[in-house]
Amino acid sequence: MMREKLHVHLESSRNRAPLFHLTEEKWAAAAKRHRTLAKNLRVTIGWDGDIIDEALRTADVMINSDPPRENLRERAPRMKWIQTTGAGVDQLFPFDWLPDEIILTNNSGAHGPKAEDSCAMALLMLNSRLPEILTNQRERRWQPIFSTPIKGKTAVVIGFGDLGQAAGRAAKKLGLEVIAVTRSGKAGRPADVSRPVSGIDRVLPKGHFVIVTAPLTAETRGLISRERLALLRPGAGFVNIGRSPVVDYAALTEKLTSGQISGAVLDVFDQEPLPAHSPLWTTPNLVIMPHISCDDPRYIDQLFDTWFANFGRFMNGKPLRSIVDRRLGY
Amino acid sequence: MMREKLHVHLESSRNRAPLFHLTEEKWAAAAKRHRTLAKNLRVTIGWDGDIIDEALRTADVMINSDPPRENLRERAPRMKWIQTTGAGVDQLFPFDWLPDEIILTNNSGAHGPKAEDSCAMALLMLNSRLPEILTNQRERRWQPIFSTPIKGKTAVVIGFGDLGQAAGRAAKKLGLEVIAVTRSGKAGRPADVSRPVSGIDRVLPKGHFVIVTAPLTAETRGLISRERLALLRPGAGFVNIGRSPVVDYAALTEKLTSGQISGAVLDVFDQEPLPAHSPLWTTPNLVIMPHISCDDPRYIDQLFDTWFANFGRFMNGKPLRSIVDRRLGY
Repeated sequence: MMREKLHVHLESSRNRAPLFHLTEEKWAAAAKRHRTLAKNLRVTIGWDGDIIDEALRTADVMINSDPPRENLRERAPRMKWIQTTGAGVDQLFPFDWLPDEIILTNNSGAHGPKAEDSCAMALLMLNSRLPEILTNQRERRWQPIFSTPIKGKTAVVIGFGDLGQAAGRAAKKLGLEVIAVTRSGKAGRPADVSRPVSGIDRVLPKGHFVIVTAPLTAETRGLISRERLALLRPGAGFVNIGRSPVVDYAALTEKLTSGQISGAVLDVFDQEPLPAHSPLWTTPNLVIMPHISCDDPRYIDQLFDTWFANFGRFMNGKPLRSIVDRRLGY
Repeated sequence: MMREKLHVHLESSRNRAPLFHLTEEKWAAAAKRHRTLAKNLRVTIGWDGDIIDEALRTADVMINSDPPRENLRERAPRMKWIQTTGAGVDQLFPFDWLPDEIILTNNSGAHGPKAEDSCAMALLMLNSRLPEILTNQRERRWQPIFSTPIKGKTAVVIGFGDLGQAAGRAAKKLGLEVIAVTRSGKAGRPADVSRPVSGIDRVLPKGHFVIVTAPLTAETRGLISRERLALLRPGAGFVNIGRSPVVDYAALTEKLTSGQISGAVLDVFDQEPLPAHSPLWTTPNLVIMPHISCDDPRYIDQLFDTWFANFGRFMNGKPLRSIVDRRLGY
């Protein structure tokens, strides 16, 4: 019995780093790894919308970080499932463009191992006061700054999904106490303690380090406000690998300059690439990472592998993994 | 029965960071922690030689990184034991000033926990190409550079004493393979493999990372020469927390500038403080640490604790720990 092949459309943007391109080569390699499942598929690959209208007419599934939103149901009558290439879906808010019957899955879970490395690095750098030492290097200033080993200190992790758990694993391996702040107040291992976001003001002063990993949602926007940054313990270190609008960067900059916060490692910014004129480039005690902390160069290969596993469930009528909750926004 | 008290003289230099000062406060706290042993001691504390001649006339023991070398036997007729505050004793070479019957002990073993943190940090930074990213930050350049997680890569550790073992522990915890290069070719855990220094040329190309922890001796001076740096695998990361004359920094600088070596973290320099005019400050892909990688701010407290434990052995006629081998130079 021949079943009609399902049409999957991959859509890339040349504006993004090549790492994130859904290329024919990467797809071919993945299809080879998942040969049996791939037999059910017909694939088209588009770039910056060059064939999007034609593709949507017959596509059953789409993989794409920035799906077309206007009249989607009419333009894509067969569309059943959209997979985003990223984990955060804040750029797709509000979800009024998305018909109820189309499933939206994100790439949550892809970022764990690299995020764990990046968080371990950031924690060790902050503990060694490296942001200050690097600021001194820029000024050709030799200023020994000594610090005790990191073991036994405390990390507060804001958000405890894929990235937060990676941060937690990194912190536990370094011998830290981990306090997780989550929406529900519940968090499993590797957190030692978990608290609801409503109690965040009592938790923030406990961290030698605060790591923001939360997605951007209506609830997290502005969560780490000027007032909350003032609650950090003097000399604390700060990390953001989540989304920039969760944190008041203007207030953070002031506290870095005054030394109330000893250093920060930021991986996410309101505007990316960060423009050359941004004052953040030269803010003292600040390390700027060009949004790389959670991305393995084998990112798309891993996305395809995860997607094929989900596609197997789809074919068997089983519930998919990583479905975005439209109400919660992640 | 009253025994005559032994005279211990502590000598500090105000030129050194306060961290390393042998102060009355730190001594009093240590004497309290080791009350019984301290009863056997009379202490004097000198600064930059202000009372050195008088102190030497009666001192049985001295704690000092830079002991007076001229006519030591005549000036210090009762001296039995000199403890250095540092681990490296290369600044005291050659040992012709030191009478055979005076024991010289160093502070080997004090640097482990902090060195482990620093090596883990350096490995993660090098794996994430942070030296390049920081160079880009200095130029306000947003350039995403992606890297795979560190797990499974290989670190070559040159020297496997206190610091080398700390580097090895850091590497193992990150999931790396550890190859130790030692004088004898023997190294215990946490090395996976050990090789004699005579085979170093075959080992250097294997490291994604090379960490130099060796003390400066006649055998290690110039060990990591221009020719040997050329053996490093393309894009390797480099760390030196040992002594600078072990490595050809001019050749290293060229390889960092050309990108053959992707990044380096250096903690030791020929001249410290590194002068403001040094070209190293702005060498691309180079992170300059102001000789802090192995020093806990509780350094002198820990030195005193280690020294008191040794002093207990001294009083009981037992062999001391951390005796410097004059022939090997460490």
